[in-house]
Amino acid sequence: MARVSQEHLDARRRQILDGAALCFARNGFHAASMQDVLKEVGLSAGAVYRYFRGKEELIEAIVSEVLDEIRGIFEAAAEQSPPPPPHVLVGKVLGDVLDLKPGLTDGAKSYYPRLMIQVWTETLRNDGLSAILQEGYVQVRAAWVRVVEGYQKAGMMRSDVPADHVARTMIALAQGFAAQYALFDDVAVEMLQDGLRALVSMDLPS
Amino acid sequence: MARVSQEHLDARRRQILDGAALCFARNGFHAASMQDVLKEVGLSAGAVYRYFRGKEELIEAIVSEVLDEIRGIFEAAAEQSPPPPPHVLVGKVLGDVLDLKPGLTDGAKSYYPRLMIQVWTETLRNDGLSAILQEGYVQVRAAWVRVVEGYQKAGMMRSDVPADHVARTMIALAQGFAAQYALFDDVAVEMLQDGLRALVSMDLPS
Repeated sequence: MARVSQEHLDARRRQILDGAALCFARNGFHAASMQDVLKEVGLSAGAVYRYFRGKEELIEAIVSEVLDEIRGIFEAAAEQSPPPPPHVLVGKVLGDVLDLKPGLTDGAKSYYPRLMIQVWTETLRNDGLSAILQEGYVQVRAAWVRVVEGYQKAGMMRSDVPADHVARTMIALAQGFAAQYALFDDVAVEMLQDGLRALVSMDLPS
Repeated sequence: MARVSQEHLDARRRQILDGAALCFARNGFHAASMQDVLKEVGLSAGAVYRYFRGKEELIEAIVSEVLDEIRGIFEAAAEQSPPPPPHVLVGKVLGDVLDLKPGLTDGAKSYYPRLMIQVWTETLRNDGLSAILQEGYVQVRAAWVRVVEGYQKAGMMRSDVPADHVARTMIALAQGFAAQYALFDDVAVEMLQDGLRALVSMDLPS
């Protein structure tokens, strides 16, 4: 084998991961065959197997990367100072998810949420990936709990509800809306921001 | 074939659907083989193929049923009068989903949300199932829009945000929390109700 630079190796690996992610987002991890992946990537089987021993290893690499990217987006959004109100925070997460991989699209629509919900189901049958997801969830919750405690200290939110429960609820909103974006045709981040803005300014009889 | 009652046929069909749903919830629609399904159901291949021509037809029957059941739960929750506040409404949906199939469990934990997120990914690769999901989403949104309009008419919610956006946001909450229940170990309906109760009673600087 000719000597090749690390840069070249990294670029090839990236090319394989990106092509495979597009292929899996479109057809699912299990319905897409390794032939489909090779066709999308535009490399020979020999070239791809130099980087990944098989489809399972390729799937694991993609799932781990997606989980890592999403954890990063949730954590970064929570680091803004002062902490933004819930509709801004959740809207930022969703917008960042949609902007994450400009190449992972079907025309104008990001395929990232579509990949994300397939990543979820993949963690159900792989304990190692499930552990990465659960560990990421603990970290994200810790970051969002600090935001919620900020609301409570500033007197913007009642303090008799555990901050962790509010954090889980805001995270669920981002997850649920990402699922809607993946599953339905006419979903926009602004709808979620609007909807949450109306919810957090409700005036309920106590 | 001996003559059998409709009741018997229905009961057999139910037995197959329930066993297959448990098997698919555990292992996924694609990782679970038809052999796994037969073992779980406890019937011969011949007996099962009398009701479903193959795995695809069985998957479609289960996905359609799940979509129909979830649509029913979302619609029924919205029909309460007077319309309950958001945290009660969303909590009711989630509680009803967890109670839906007492046999579809792993010990104490309902497998229904686990089946649900696998149903979502299945609709991504099947246009017919996707159409059923999208049609159900339109109907659920219409029912929840009426609830939101109730909030607005009662002066409990600002009227300058489209009711449809609030409805989508509340639906996303139930979906996202169901996903958390499927993916993580320590999730309870009360956490979502707590969290949303705190969000809807916020006092934000305007």
